[in-house]
Amino acid sequence: MKQYLTVADAPNWSYLLDRADFYRRNPHADAALGKHKTLLQLFYNPSLRTRLSTQIAGQRLGMDVITMDLTQGWSLEFEDRAIMDGNKAEHIREAAGVMSRFADIIGLRSFASLQDREADYSDFVINQFARHTQVPVLNLESATGHPLQALADALTIRQHQPDHRPKVVLSWAPHPRALPQAVANSFIQGMQRMDVDLVVTHPEGFDLNPDIVGNVEVEYDQNRALEQADFVYVKNWSSYQDYGATAPQLKSWTLTQEKMEQTNQGRFMHCLPVRRNVVVADEVIDSANSIVLDQAENRIYAAQAVLAELLM
Amino acid sequence: MKQYLTVADAPNWSYLLDRADFYRRNPHADAALGKHKTLLQLFYNPSLRTRLSTQIAGQRLGMDVITMDLTQGWSLEFEDRAIMDGNKAEHIREAAGVMSRFADIIGLRSFASLQDREADYSDFVINQFARHTQVPVLNLESATGHPLQALADALTIRQHQPDHRPKVVLSWAPHPRALPQAVANSFIQGMQRMDVDLVVTHPEGFDLNPDIVGNVEVEYDQNRALEQADFVYVKNWSSYQDYGATAPQLKSWTLTQEKMEQTNQGRFMHCLPVRRNVVVADEVIDSANSIVLDQAENRIYAAQAVLAELLM
Amino acid sequence: MKQYLTVADAPNWSYLLDRADFYRRNPHADAALGKHKTLLQLFYNPSLRTRLSTQIAGQRLGMDVITMDLTQGWSLEFEDRAIMDGNKAEHIREAAGVMSRFADIIGLRSFASLQDREADYSDFVINQFARHTQVPVLNLESATGHPLQALADALTIRQHQPDHRPKVVLSWAPHPRALPQAVANSFIQGMQRMDVDLVVTHPEGFDLNPDIVGNVEVEYDQNRALEQADFVYVKNWSSYQDYGATAPQLKSWTLTQEKMEQTNQGRFMHCLPVRRNVVVADEVIDSANSIVLDQAENRIYAAQAVLAELLM
Repeated sequence: MKQYLTVADAPNWSYLLDRADFYRRNPHADAALGKHKTLLQLFYNPSLRTRLSTQIAGQRLGMDVITMDLTQGWSLEFEDRAIMDGNKAEHIREAAGVMSRFADIIGLRSFASLQDREADYSDFVINQFARHTQVPVLNLESATGHPLQALADALTIRQHQPDHRPKVVLSWAPHPRALPQAVANSFIQGMQRMDVDLVVTHPEGFDLNPDIVGNVEVEYDQNRALEQADFVYVKNWSSYQDYGATAPQLKSWTLTQEKMEQTNQGRFMHCLPVRRNVVVADEVIDSANSIVLDQAENRIYAAQAVLAELLM
Repeated sequence: MKQYLTVADAPNWSYLLDRADFYRRNPHADAALGKHKTLLQLFYNPSLRTRLSTQIAGQRLGMDVITMDLTQGWSLEFEDRAIMDGNKAEHIREAAGVMSRFADIIGLRSFASLQDREADYSDFVINQFARHTQVPVLNLESATGHPLQALADALTIRQHQPDHRPKVVLSWAPHPRALPQAVANSFIQGMQRMDVDLVVTHPEGFDLNPDIVGNVEVEYDQNRALEQADFVYVKNWSSYQDYGATAPQLKSWTLTQEKMEQTNQGRFMHCLPVRRNVVVADEVIDSANSIVLDQAENRIYAAQAVLAELLM
Repeated sequence: MKQYLTVADAPNWSYLLDRADFYRRNPHADAALGKHKTLLQLFYNPSLRTRLSTQIAGQRLGMDVITMDLTQGWSLEFEDRAIMDGNKAEHIREAAGVMSRFADIIGLRSFASLQDREADYSDFVINQFARHTQVPVLNLESATGHPLQALADALTIRQHQPDHRPKVVLSWAPHPRALPQAVANSFIQGMQRMDVDLVVTHPEGFDLNPDIVGNVEVEYDQNRALEQADFVYVKNWSSYQDYGATAPQLKSWTLTQEKMEQTNQGRFMHCLPVRRNVVVADEVIDSANSIVLDQAENRIYAAQAVLAELLM
């Protein structure tokens, strides 16, 4: 695997899942695979889970992991032929060139602005890094995707796989802030590569990018969508159509235990952090069917699998 | 040992001291003890000595150590059943749950507010972490205690042990800022578990929490307290009674060489950082009887001993 | 080698270059040399290349590397006999004393103020650390020097050595901000210890410190200086005479391909980050004769060589 910018970069999703599942059962199996290799994690936005899980994954493979918080600085020039007499101190060409000499894999987080849909969906920052680096680039959540989360989510569904083809529901939920569509996008892309029935449910006006949704079933009635669901993934996202708009007042979309009773003893999923009693009721997330901590733990094994492939 | 939130969590203080002393003489003896284990250090307040000494201690035991500075963020909700539509993005239940999946030991620093005595003395933040995590929690200085410092202090006294039962004086000193009582509290608790004569001296109005002081001798006359002292630990703390009040004008409490002459060639101790010529005169801290750098170095061995016990 | 504060601290520049070149060809040769040793990197100013290259160098030698960002704090008192009742919480004596107990090598970055020439050229901060520490101090760029950069630069020239004594030109270039003289100073000092013809060229008013330049040839006509150059190192620095003054309007000093044609197929060098089309035209830095990424990579090997010597 040459890079992992989107779920589509994995040539064989099923094989990658096998590998992640192998590390789930044998976390220290490949402790020398990354010996003398450096993983550099660059964060243009804050991170807790992604930073920790990816660092632990790299260390378990024997890599040296260096984490840099760039939330305060390193303002790069991305335009070719720019006359750099302003406040941008370095061009992406040198930045990426130098990082390629220093590291064997470069991880990068750069969130959506939620101001300019076209710019966000070009995923400019991570694509510019990927274009100018000589080493594999790993997406630690970009403007439009979070493929490490998607692999962890897929692994969690496999870990709790029923003995039939599962029904998986991705449901929108209210949230006080406007959030990107990245997690939802990558989750859909991951599920499209698995043997599941996927239904996406959300209020009208919150349809995701049609290029990503493709022919996945969309149901505007949350209750109908939840019927007989084996897995219920709840997540807020802001509007794609009215780009960045949000609807915290739609409290009827909060996932409650009453709604869960229509499911097939459905497992509750969320990528965390989660707003309790806004996105999901306490009674659901605290129930025995909540598998959010497995999802979080699986972030480590997903990152191990991806790093192992990028090291090959 | 299941956790190390206070000195009282050590089932056998003398054994823990033995272990710390063993690492002082053999710092690299247990380089594989923490192999494949992760220590996560979380700092809600800045740290230099504690961060470095604990990181070095973990590394010497073969642990992977990850340090996170949370002074800029990760605002957690601690209330049960909260409707999280404000500015707190994550509940302690998920935060502690996820950290328990990622790390084998969680260290946490969270200072006193010095605004609300009852809240501070409930030591809410660290106790909430300890309640919700599945792995041992290590106190890196909380609102009311600094038990790693107390173990290092006790080790330093043992290292410089005279051939008689030592007299140990804990003396208040002036300081331009209002400081917590945490270091003084834990020092007293550590000394209460050792074979020493402890005397606490401070101006009236600066009595410490009576639940901690217990029947330790308190002497309001600093000069009388210092007579024949073998160890003089100087430290500022703000008032417990008039909670958070301070008295920088009480310059007669600065420890001078003249005062030290009443001691039994007493050793000067301080946890650092120290305000020279406010807390202590240059002539004292620069003298051959100053053992403040031993105290600082012993922070490493104290942390090794505690981490080793928590790994068991 | 007891410390590496300036190029002059290397007793044998040629041997140090040999060692750096050895690590360039055998980066993992001495993976146990620094076992059980800690490198502590302290940054009073931001750093990317220096931080990363030095961390990687330390790790390749088997050291534990701890990096601390002090850009937000740790305001130290440097004056002897100060009464510390202001906002400085710790004296350099304790700070350096404690760090010496915690680390085996201390790296320090502290830039020039560009306000007070005398203070800057006393290189007060790093010299105070060196005076009060018991372990080797490593300059990660101080007010007046950047000797790790100078060693990497020298290694890069050796790597691309022509079969004759090379002509090396250090040329001033315009820049929108006032920059220190540190890189230029150390580069000159490094070149003075090698078998090269060095010419320094800059506008009048930008002469460097005469104590450093010594009898190196200075040429105010950039075009004449560039004739038959084998290496062209371009770098901005602010004025030493009119201390801290700069001249962004002198655009005729930008290095262009037209100017490079007077050279002997000269290699283009810069320490990065570089302002494209201000310091150097795209066509030069993007040409096959640009060796800036080799310079950056050589930062690792230079740091390995210096750390290895400091560990002896």
